[in-house]
Amino acid sequence: MDRRSFSRRLLAGGVVAAAGTASLSVVSAPPASSAESPPPTAPAGGQVRHLRLYAETLPNGQMGYGLEKGKATVPGPLIELVEGDTLHIEFENTTDVDASLHVHGVDYDVASDGTRMNRGHVEPGGTRTYTWRTHAPGRRKDGTWQAGSAGYWHYHDHVVGTDHGTGGIRKGLYGPVVVRRKGDILPDKQFTIVFNDMTINNRAAHETPNFEATVGDRVEIVMITHGEYYHTFHMHGHRWADNRTGLLTGPDDPSRVVDNKITGPADSFGFQIIAGEHVGAGAWMYHCHVQSHSDMGMAGLFLVAKPDGTIPGYEPHHADHAAGAAQDADASAGQHAHH
Amino acid sequence: MDRRSFSRRLLAGGVVAAAGTASLSVVSAPPASSAESPPPTAPAGGQVRHLRLYAETLPNGQMGYGLEKGKATVPGPLIELVEGDTLHIEFENTTDVDASLHVHGVDYDVASDGTRMNRGHVEPGGTRTYTWRTHAPGRRKDGTWQAGSAGYWHYHDHVVGTDHGTGGIRKGLYGPVVVRRKGDILPDKQFTIVFNDMTINNRAAHETPNFEATVGDRVEIVMITHGEYYHTFHMHGHRWADNRTGLLTGPDDPSRVVDNKITGPADSFGFQIIAGEHVGAGAWMYHCHVQSHSDMGMAGLFLVAKPDGTIPGYEPHHADHAAGAAQDADASAGQHAHH
Amino acid sequence: MDRRSFSRRLLAGGVVAAAGTASLSVVSAPPASSAESPPPTAPAGGQVRHLRLYAETLPNGQMGYGLEKGKATVPGPLIELVEGDTLHIEFENTTDVDASLHVHGVDYDVASDGTRMNRGHVEPGGTRTYTWRTHAPGRRKDGTWQAGSAGYWHYHDHVVGTDHGTGGIRKGLYGPVVVRRKGDILPDKQFTIVFNDMTINNRAAHETPNFEATVGDRVEIVMITHGEYYHTFHMHGHRWADNRTGLLTGPDDPSRVVDNKITGPADSFGFQIIAGEHVGAGAWMYHCHVQSHSDMGMAGLFLVAKPDGTIPGYEPHHADHAAGAAQDADASAGQHAHH
Repeated sequence: MDRRSFSRRLLAGGVVAAAGTASLSVVSAPPASSAESPPPTAPAGGQVRHLRLYAETLPNGQMGYGLEKGKATVPGPLIELVEGDTLHIEFENTTDVDASLHVHGVDYDVASDGTRMNRGHVEPGGTRTYTWRTHAPGRRKDGTWQAGSAGYWHYHDHVVGTDHGTGGIRKGLYGPVVVRRKGDILPDKQFTIVFNDMTINNRAAHETPNFEATVGDRVEIVMITHGEYYHTFHMHGHRWADNRTGLLTGPDDPSRVVDNKITGPADSFGFQIIAGEHVGAGAWMYHCHVQSHSDMGMAGLFLVAKPDGTIPGYEPHHADHAAGAAQDADASAGQHAHH
Repeated sequence: MDRRSFSRRLLAGGVVAAAGTASLSVVSAPPASSAESPPPTAPAGGQVRHLRLYAETLPNGQMGYGLEKGKATVPGPLIELVEGDTLHIEFENTTDVDASLHVHGVDYDVASDGTRMNRGHVEPGGTRTYTWRTHAPGRRKDGTWQAGSAGYWHYHDHVVGTDHGTGGIRKGLYGPVVVRRKGDILPDKQFTIVFNDMTINNRAAHETPNFEATVGDRVEIVMITHGEYYHTFHMHGHRWADNRTGLLTGPDDPSRVVDNKITGPADSFGFQIIAGEHVGAGAWMYHCHVQSHSDMGMAGLFLVAKPDGTIPGYEPHHADHAAGAAQDADASAGQHAHH
Repeated sequence: MDRRSFSRRLLAGGVVAAAGTASLSVVSAPPASSAESPPPTAPAGGQVRHLRLYAETLPNGQMGYGLEKGKATVPGPLIELVEGDTLHIEFENTTDVDASLHVHGVDYDVASDGTRMNRGHVEPGGTRTYTWRTHAPGRRKDGTWQAGSAGYWHYHDHVVGTDHGTGGIRKGLYGPVVVRRKGDILPDKQFTIVFNDMTINNRAAHETPNFEATVGDRVEIVMITHGEYYHTFHMHGHRWADNRTGLLTGPDDPSRVVDNKITGPADSFGFQIIAGEHVGAGAWMYHCHVQSHSDMGMAGLFLVAKPDGTIPGYEPHHADHAAGAAQDADASAGQHAHH
């Protein structure tokens, strides 16, 4: 099923596949990848879309957002739009405290701000509709240039614990938002990595997520920071451009290419990499490069397999011991399936 | 009076308007704004200008810079130049300790460096002239490209308390500098936001500044960080480009658009936003997104009114209670009047 | 001798000049500088190169990398490549603990990753060859644009002390890597500044390095951060573009020009400045602008002399007292000689 169909079925009340994290995506699924044909790109936006989103308390005491009752995850589902789209989110708070939905980057009236000050919170058991709008870039009537909504953004609670949502964020009430521009290249796989205090996706040392791909996959990383600390996000063997898309626009793009980037709470950025390009298959670490943070386990693996499924030199147990990284490659949270 | 006239009068020794924070501006005041005609832009530079600046101890024990005796503010006055301008600042130190003026971004001989090492400080009661120069971009004789001086810069003391001015900065001896390029778009309103340790413009929780505009105003924010801590600057409902002007140059500008940005001491950046564009009137929070910082009150409001002056859903008392933000919308400091 | 000859002689086992820090450079030495002729630029890459690198324990208990036994420095030698080059590094660990070589930015198989997890470490007395590859930008077969390897990168140990090399980095096992693009402008002088915890190039207050140049020299700074803390790198009187090269590509480059930049561990960037351009000769401070860090001595001097060798207003003893900066202008470490 292509992604658009998935989304439509979901929005119509269809059942989400039992395994993996659901996501709302407005873009077509990529065709079988080919190294010689252009990758699929985002279509024009302009749709009005609807979504149900639940804030839930998880069995382990953490909290999460989910597209269905009982299916909340940390991070919450990836919400993907194209500039011009409008999204109405019918939000239900199934927890026993006030909760909300605050979003970065997109357009919303103050009533959809998600702050208590603007009465944007929802009481336990309550519902409300938040509306997010997006717009394409273009010239204003006065001739000046107006940026579009495209970007790697995110949403989070703004009221649990404190009036800035410190308790909600700490417990996991956050998730990624990607707004594409018409023509933006679509990835084969998407992963979300959230440095939230000393955790990755609210998972501490030895339980941090690993992410799996095959050499040649076009992999999109959405990187978000939350909480109290600054971090530096580093990947081994892969780099990206420090600009809007993480991809250089061409030979004249002056942006710095990096493999390490300082970030602070609520910063977000994203990029696409070709798994193993120029470096081959392997177990590639990603980690916070603040030395005490990595030593305490803020590290995981980007596992890039050969087409036959093998990963040179990778022994899961040894890897865990050596890197303080995840033993179990259970990365369902933060790994967005497009069925 | 247009801004250039104001400046000239000021420079000629005229009296600064009693209310509001004065500023030195070299650009013409914008005409009555129109959504359909191009906004005013910066003229060519090249003027030689003169200014008096006073370092003063304020009644509350803080310190500030001002254009007239007894009128010092925190932050100090906005000083605005166009590439090519030269500014001679006759500086008088009315405090009882050595003080100085160190500037970022513009050109100055080592004698105008403002450090004790270079004997750039001024004793109590003393005066000295600091000279700042600026230059337009262009090709050097060897054919290489040379950047111009345009940018969102700032000045601060470099000797009070320590040889890096830690005491002076802590007490309020800092202010914004904007250097424009010919053709840069001029704003309708300008606000300076300084994250100085855990304060905003040296005002702590419940006394932080709010900023007021009307939907459609072209508002310029100059954001400066000082002190000891890193912060992330976030605005609700508004975004900017992470480049020189904060405005994308056009469809080919690859810069990331952001609404949250990590900053550290002496970093500065600026941008222009159209108040309420795509989101409408409202009380829009701005805050540090480091969770403990916002919880301790590093937050304020960008109050965007409808043309009739009303702000939907805004109740000042409730806002104060809910957000830990300013109750009194006394934002004269950091709000630059162009009379 | 031009730089390429130097490198070849070095690679063939020639003796490194006794004074100064050696470096591996693949670019021709600049001719006698002229302000009116274009500066030299990087040639096309594509060479296969070989280098010996030693990890050593220094007499003071710190550790360093060096191109010859007994010649290790902190930071280690500058390694400079052009996109397309391949470098085979025969690494010998002369210390009494496992050590390794991990690099940022360039291409390497997982076997050259330098992590214990990928068995990239070397036992005491052992040797192994690490291979770094680089590539030029260009179009992939699918039509998408691929970034090149050019950048200001760095290498460091990944295994001493912890599985993230925290002990090795703390003791000095790090160094700069510059990958140029064909046509990139070559500098006259190069300096490396590493903010490693509260040191600069592992030298604490009063022993921090100064850097010397003459007005008009094209000076390249490679700035790297390591350790635990965030910093803000500031230079007095000089600025750079916040993009790949630190130089604006021309009038259409929208990048911000800065003189202060927040950085965190393993971040790196570089830029070229014309010493004293628009500001003249002098003792120009560079320092971390986090106030407690500069107060504790994270500061040094960029000493820009007139052609006659004098530096206006500079008295070394006074400078040391006033700025907490280095008294002895012994900056051999971090200062890369091209003989």
